[in-house]
Amino acid sequence: MTNFASDNVTGISPAILEAISAANQDYAASSYGADKWTAGLSEQASEIFEKDVTVFPVISGTAANVLPISSLTPSYGAIYCHEYAHIHTDECGASEFYTGGAKLLSLSGEHAKFSAEKLSASIFGRGVARHAQPALVSVTQTTEAGTLYQVDEVAAISAVARENGMKVHMDGARFANAVAGLGCSPADITWRAGVDVLSFGATKNGAMGAELVVFFNKADSRELEHRRVRGGHYLSKMRFVSAQLSAYLAKDLWLENARRANAMAKRLVDHLKEIPAVSFVHPVEANILFLSMPKKMARSLKDAGFEFYEMSETDPVLVRLVLSFNSSEADVDRFGDIAKSLA
Amino acid sequence: MTNFASDNVTGISPAILEAISAANQDYAASSYGADKWTAGLSEQASEIFEKDVTVFPVISGTAANVLPISSLTPSYGAIYCHEYAHIHTDECGASEFYTGGAKLLSLSGEHAKFSAEKLSASIFGRGVARHAQPALVSVTQTTEAGTLYQVDEVAAISAVARENGMKVHMDGARFANAVAGLGCSPADITWRAGVDVLSFGATKNGAMGAELVVFFNKADSRELEHRRVRGGHYLSKMRFVSAQLSAYLAKDLWLENARRANAMAKRLVDHLKEIPAVSFVHPVEANILFLSMPKKMARSLKDAGFEFYEMSETDPVLVRLVLSFNSSEADVDRFGDIAKSLA
Amino acid sequence: MTNFASDNVTGISPAILEAISAANQDYAASSYGADKWTAGLSEQASEIFEKDVTVFPVISGTAANVLPISSLTPSYGAIYCHEYAHIHTDECGASEFYTGGAKLLSLSGEHAKFSAEKLSASIFGRGVARHAQPALVSVTQTTEAGTLYQVDEVAAISAVARENGMKVHMDGARFANAVAGLGCSPADITWRAGVDVLSFGATKNGAMGAELVVFFNKADSRELEHRRVRGGHYLSKMRFVSAQLSAYLAKDLWLENARRANAMAKRLVDHLKEIPAVSFVHPVEANILFLSMPKKMARSLKDAGFEFYEMSETDPVLVRLVLSFNSSEADVDRFGDIAKSLA
Amino acid sequence: MTNFASDNVTGISPAILEAISAANQDYAASSYGADKWTAGLSEQASEIFEKDVTVFPVISGTAANVLPISSLTPSYGAIYCHEYAHIHTDECGASEFYTGGAKLLSLSGEHAKFSAEKLSASIFGRGVARHAQPALVSVTQTTEAGTLYQVDEVAAISAVARENGMKVHMDGARFANAVAGLGCSPADITWRAGVDVLSFGATKNGAMGAELVVFFNKADSRELEHRRVRGGHYLSKMRFVSAQLSAYLAKDLWLENARRANAMAKRLVDHLKEIPAVSFVHPVEANILFLSMPKKMARSLKDAGFEFYEMSETDPVLVRLVLSFNSSEADVDRFGDIAKSLA
Repeated sequence: MTNFASDNVTGISPAILEAISAANQDYAASSYGADKWTAGLSEQASEIFEKDVTVFPVISGTAANVLPISSLTPSYGAIYCHEYAHIHTDECGASEFYTGGAKLLSLSGEHAKFSAEKLSASIFGRGVARHAQPALVSVTQTTEAGTLYQVDEVAAISAVARENGMKVHMDGARFANAVAGLGCSPADITWRAGVDVLSFGATKNGAMGAELVVFFNKADSRELEHRRVRGGHYLSKMRFVSAQLSAYLAKDLWLENARRANAMAKRLVDHLKEIPAVSFVHPVEANILFLSMPKKMARSLKDAGFEFYEMSETDPVLVRLVLSFNSSEADVDRFGDIAKSLA
Repeated sequence: MTNFASDNVTGISPAILEAISAANQDYAASSYGADKWTAGLSEQASEIFEKDVTVFPVISGTAANVLPISSLTPSYGAIYCHEYAHIHTDECGASEFYTGGAKLLSLSGEHAKFSAEKLSASIFGRGVARHAQPALVSVTQTTEAGTLYQVDEVAAISAVARENGMKVHMDGARFANAVAGLGCSPADITWRAGVDVLSFGATKNGAMGAELVVFFNKADSRELEHRRVRGGHYLSKMRFVSAQLSAYLAKDLWLENARRANAMAKRLVDHLKEIPAVSFVHPVEANILFLSMPKKMARSLKDAGFEFYEMSETDPVLVRLVLSFNSSEADVDRFGDIAKSLA
Repeated sequence: MTNFASDNVTGISPAILEAISAANQDYAASSYGADKWTAGLSEQASEIFEKDVTVFPVISGTAANVLPISSLTPSYGAIYCHEYAHIHTDECGASEFYTGGAKLLSLSGEHAKFSAEKLSASIFGRGVARHAQPALVSVTQTTEAGTLYQVDEVAAISAVARENGMKVHMDGARFANAVAGLGCSPADITWRAGVDVLSFGATKNGAMGAELVVFFNKADSRELEHRRVRGGHYLSKMRFVSAQLSAYLAKDLWLENARRANAMAKRLVDHLKEIPAVSFVHPVEANILFLSMPKKMARSLKDAGFEFYEMSETDPVLVRLVLSFNSSEADVDRFGDIAKSLA
Repeated sequence: MTNFASDNVTGISPAILEAISAANQDYAASSYGADKWTAGLSEQASEIFEKDVTVFPVISGTAANVLPISSLTPSYGAIYCHEYAHIHTDECGASEFYTGGAKLLSLSGEHAKFSAEKLSASIFGRGVARHAQPALVSVTQTTEAGTLYQVDEVAAISAVARENGMKVHMDGARFANAVAGLGCSPADITWRAGVDVLSFGATKNGAMGAELVVFFNKADSRELEHRRVRGGHYLSKMRFVSAQLSAYLAKDLWLENARRANAMAKRLVDHLKEIPAVSFVHPVEANILFLSMPKKMARSLKDAGFEFYEMSETDPVLVRLVLSFNSSEADVDRFGDIAKSLA
């Protein structure tokens, strides 16, 4: 069976699994992050981002989102995000919980992206007692639709945020795929574009369970340590999470894995775009394809052993395909060939 | 260097590390716990506890505590625990956070244990609007002092809880050491003694980062799934946590590891009890020693490469030694011999 | 100056002010609601609603909303309401706060009303871990637009709520105006139409500061007492709030005051509908008018001593006029006459 | 019947009731505190405290406590207070709720007072991730035992707070009685002694339901407005609360009422201290007496129409007597005479 359902069904990248084993050989380790792997992450990330950054390893994307979000949003604050944002629709109110009841205000926009103009027109209530106070903007990069915000789009959003006294968070569960897709530097699409804090995902891109919170301004990170303990995300054997991230950041593994996933997505697009009955719902800019195909075709591909989500009950059906660092060319070609043969 | 500072500085038990690798070979896996390892945990735990139990794998002891605690305590509730309980002193208010502001009321008692009588005398305010409502009793087993509640002691506490409409939680970060120390069945010291939910620790006893929440009544577990998502503890690659726990519960690894740790503690006691200048502060009933020794002795042991906590600034100094599944007899004997030579 | 800005700028209805004075003569009173006025409210309300109800006096509309809302919504719950609902837009996240971070999901709909169909199509995520769980529907009656839900509309909404395991809350800050406007019985528009709990407003209709939470099922009220204390709404001299409500419910004062306000609104409509330059934005069904008028007309009316809100910066301007129990016919006629003279 | 049970059973001071009526005559009023009474409070309080203060009227003692407490304590913070403090024992966890789960750590001490030394010895965990962070000290003045902190005692506590980066809150539900008892200036016992914010009570001393939050540093008050809305304490007809407080602060009514209550307490002490069978449990320094008397004496006094709390089931019984601004000399003397006749 070949699994294109999500990049989180994939296993562990070999170098990361080795790093876990290697960390197990060291008996000098201290607990709760007082170890060399955790200590080294800061330097590794600072080099990648061309800036002194403050980092915190955690074990889930939700944790990587809500810990900085709640550090930067008071309980009476408002958080602006896209209506399809994971923090709004798929975390069972984690941001409301960690902030003590802040309000998420969702913005619409094509291809799961909102614009600076939309944001600007939606902000309200600043300084008015009865309204939640604008506090944070959260941008998802790669978006839920597999699309990308360009550098100037992020910069424009950040500018609106600044004008309104708000901080900017980037949900980068698939940040590596975004950098690979944009071909820009990590710095350009984050702090140079006004982003204050990044949830840098690793789990979907080869880690066993590890994400890195990256603050671009140390002052913003002041509360995180305590919030991490309260959330139950302060791990005694944190070194095994840090070791994963260390291997992930070393030797551009994060970028290589993402490039591979994106390349596989492109390869699949090349197959499918030849089929008239298949149409793309969103531009494919990273490692995710959203497309419409005849229900019969989807059925046949599943029968052939491919796993993926059908996201509508219509015919043609809306299909999501996610490619990963370990998707094989053979599988991609087989998928493409079967689809073409059914067209 | 030999590390007796804590059992959470130890590495991963070989069978558990192998289980992680093995889980990485399987490409059929689904995300978010819809996998065979997670599915199997319920059966494994039900066999160990001689009862159909409902289980949830999580990655930290704090998560394993607060998720069930907040499922069973309303925001206006009161939680009774020992004044040294980890949930009260070392989780930065995690229980207050997850419950939405419940009140922790702490009880005193020798050797980090409180009695049913003490509990009974301390409960107040039931049915009175202005008082937090008695909701939960949390018992730590093995205690923070390395001591154990006997079966009848837990049963008596549970009886008081029941009379007052309260549920009983057992913080079992070192539950395996308790079972090994008591020589009883897991059922006897939990649900048969009135415990409603157990935080069954694995991290301190050989896992990389894994704990199992065990509900003895399915109805009590109703909220946990949603609270787990909100807390950021709903892992996409949960199978790697479940695989750890699966190996931990299989072939009595949990009990063997704990027996080993307890045996090493006993061995160390046998060495040290011969030394007049060393006195034991708490009975050693599991894998932790609290003792008083001359400051000079502590210093020399540290110089000899042993790591451990000095918990006072006095002379003689209060010392904590924690033995683990992978503590070696040679290290224990060397510690004992040095101590004796200094006496 | 004549104030049509809001019904909360009005003073205290004479009978209510007298009731406060009278309560001050009684030295036998106990504190915290153990007094005869508070005790009597239950009976008064039960008679009005033709059902044994459980009531709690509080001092603000927000308190009257969030105390029952948080009693019926778990922290991981979702609350459905209109996008213009006061609980969503004007209480600075009070519902998110009191529930511990529940999610408010807003529905669109003409004239500040949403339909049962809209609700039905919007509910999602039931039983899915990562989604907030549908818990409560909140209906505002009289709506923010001054319009009314008909009995069958409320019943249809309640039916959808029931099918989805949700409770129904009615924000009745202007409930009296709704009953007066509909001409139905209080029972018909509440529990007989499936409403579980009502925030029965008095402040906007003649009280000094008093609202009554009315539960139609005693079981739903179980948590309210404790939540009231925690919220700081448990008043030592509660009898003075209860005395206001007692006078309000006695001799149909609540209904008479509302009828008067609605009649004044109707009288003002009769004046204004003759003016071609004035158009009504929402049907006037209770005591509030939303209309569009030339900016110059609005300016002149303000110069003539009338106070009201201009809700747009356009010309013609959107104007809100709120009539109260103590609006005078003379003032209404003067307003109408001036407007007509300017047309 | 004469009620010595509590000062919150008393009625409304005549000047305050008149102020409510007077405020009802004014039709120019705006809602939500944009009125002249609310505006004037700031000036009145600034004069009394000899400093520019920032004030917020609220309607309950709990609200007056938790709104500033939660403004000055992060969710991961710790609040130190006496073990008998109202915020700890009688507000059903309101402080835990409003802060989002801060931890209340209680201190022991004779006569419901804790010392600077006790506080200093109890503070722990600053800068340590796993411990709640010291954030606030709350001092109750008049204490729950009817005793008073002297100016130098408050100053010493504040100094310890400052050294540990903590703010100081004074729960002054009976602040007026304290000032009357100490004979000092309001400034001396508050900001000059290091207090940052005061909950200045009026309800127990003649208001219908009104308390004033007084910030001595404007910066500390930044969050209060939003928290007040979220808590449901932002009243549309706030002018009627402000009018009460305006009358209370005018012409020293607050101080005169308190002096009267204290004088009545002293008068009652003078009667009772002659009786050998009566002993005082706490020094009587304001308007509350705690004493031990034969159960038979208590019974007879109740039979004679006096209401008060018996706080033990022992014989002699622990009795609490609270005198108020409107306690009469005749009643006090009658109580004293009956007691003496029974001795």
